[in-house]
Amino acid sequence: MESKISNSIAISFYLLLIINFSIVESSNKIHAHRPCKTLSFYFHDILYNGENAKNATSAIVGAPAWGNLTKLAGQNNFGDLIVFDDPITLDNNIHSNPVGRAQGFYIYDKKEIFTSWLGFSFVFNSTQHKGNINFAGADPIMNKTRDISVIGGTGDFFMTRGIATIMTDSFEGEVYFRLRVDIKLYECW
Amino acid sequence: MESKISNSIAISFYLLLIINFSIVESSNKIHAHRPCKTLSFYFHDILYNGENAKNATSAIVGAPAWGNLTKLAGQNNFGDLIVFDDPITLDNNIHSNPVGRAQGFYIYDKKEIFTSWLGFSFVFNSTQHKGNINFAGADPIMNKTRDISVIGGTGDFFMTRGIATIMTDSFEGEVYFRLRVDIKLYECW
Amino acid sequence: MESKISNSIAISFYLLLIINFSIVESSNKIHAHRPCKTLSFYFHDILYNGENAKNATSAIVGAPAWGNLTKLAGQNNFGDLIVFDDPITLDNNIHSNPVGRAQGFYIYDKKEIFTSWLGFSFVFNSTQHKGNINFAGADPIMNKTRDISVIGGTGDFFMTRGIATIMTDSFEGEVYFRLRVDIKLYECW
Repeated sequence: MESKISNSIAISFYLLLIINFSIVESSNKIHAHRPCKTLSFYFHDILYNGENAKNATSAIVGAPAWGNLTKLAGQNNFGDLIVFDDPITLDNNIHSNPVGRAQGFYIYDKKEIFTSWLGFSFVFNSTQHKGNINFAGADPIMNKTRDISVIGGTGDFFMTRGIATIMTDSFEGEVYFRLRVDIKLYECW
Repeated sequence: MESKISNSIAISFYLLLIINFSIVESSNKIHAHRPCKTLSFYFHDILYNGENAKNATSAIVGAPAWGNLTKLAGQNNFGDLIVFDDPITLDNNIHSNPVGRAQGFYIYDKKEIFTSWLGFSFVFNSTQHKGNINFAGADPIMNKTRDISVIGGTGDFFMTRGIATIMTDSFEGEVYFRLRVDIKLYECW
Repeated sequence: MESKISNSIAISFYLLLIINFSIVESSNKIHAHRPCKTLSFYFHDILYNGENAKNATSAIVGAPAWGNLTKLAGQNNFGDLIVFDDPITLDNNIHSNPVGRAQGFYIYDKKEIFTSWLGFSFVFNSTQHKGNINFAGADPIMNKTRDISVIGGTGDFFMTRGIATIMTDSFEGEVYFRLRVDIKLYECW
């Protein structure tokens, strides 16, 4: 009987190994869709228009032949490249204490409607967060929510990846907008 | 005898735990080089030259001191920054029904030869694909094939990573080019 | 007794399955913080200033309304977009044999201090390295060291991810700087 039991154990062992290896082989394909970390912020963009040098947090630095550097171009701003250094706040009040800076660029990239492409970082250096979160992706501005990629991070956000859902929380003419960003990290190290 | 069996079970249990953990620890280093998904598309770029406003899908929005915004610069276009919103098709016919848009920018970045750096997204919103694929990387244009990185995705392409192989399928003067993009995704969620 | 043993085996089987799945479910959360590969390089940037066309490896191609294309703008160069094709060397001597090229762009993005945002690739095509490493992230230039993300790679660096630590090794006025880059890859395929 002992051998019978040994056999049972051997078989269970063998089966478990198979299960293990099949799981591991595909481990980079089966992922939980539950975030390992979530964060929400607002950031505030005041575009330079030739008259607001003191308050402006962003500026047009590239424009198509039909545009210029103090006014967004015709055809839904197509081709305008904007560099920004925007304050990040925890609520939607631009006067709240900034917890970091959103730094990088966006490009308006469609003639028929407002859309843009973003490359930027959230830069944190407070007691609560130290380190950067890096973002890239297409932003179809007219959609209520839109997703871009978290492509990496440093410091507290070492090697992270995820999705950031962007919502336009306020839009005031050509000078001010406020975005809400809900960050869901799915890879945390 | 019972205790003997218990021991055997305990040992097998223990061994399996060791195996498990050793596998898990290295799970981010052992990856299959077989794609979990492959996709092929063409996209079509018509550069604005001052006279083709109606058909143009891209425009120069930055140029070096020796360049301008309606003609690619000398020295192999070095420094020209182009923003684009190009139709994506399943075959090489620009008149085929577009299945999405390629949106973003490229910069010519070498004086001696044509090379560029790309940051863009494939934006899909059809019955077949919903969501974006985000790309970044160097494109040594004169090579027959060249690889850039898939750095993330959203929707159907949630959190994906991979490689996109780019081929110049057609090149007509300074106004039109068509790229074939073979996407191989190695991380699918 | 046999049934008792079977039960024991069944239970151990069951427990191991639970353990397995709980490990696998979180396998993308437990990562070793030890690099799978480290590399160190220098790269050298000579900015075009209107008079050094022959030696320049980079050029301003976008600038804010208050700037121009042959001189970095006031307010800590805010808004200046630079395209570069810089030689990579193994030591800090610009005359050493280049082992590759650093190609891409950076944008100065803060008025109060020097900071920038980088999107670029290391392009290798030597006997030692073939393939590209792609980078993105915020570079707070005045910090002694700063980390950006390795967002992907091709060839020898297929699908890699990691962190690059940047140090300013030399800075000579507005024309020349040299960066040391210590690359630590944490995902190697």
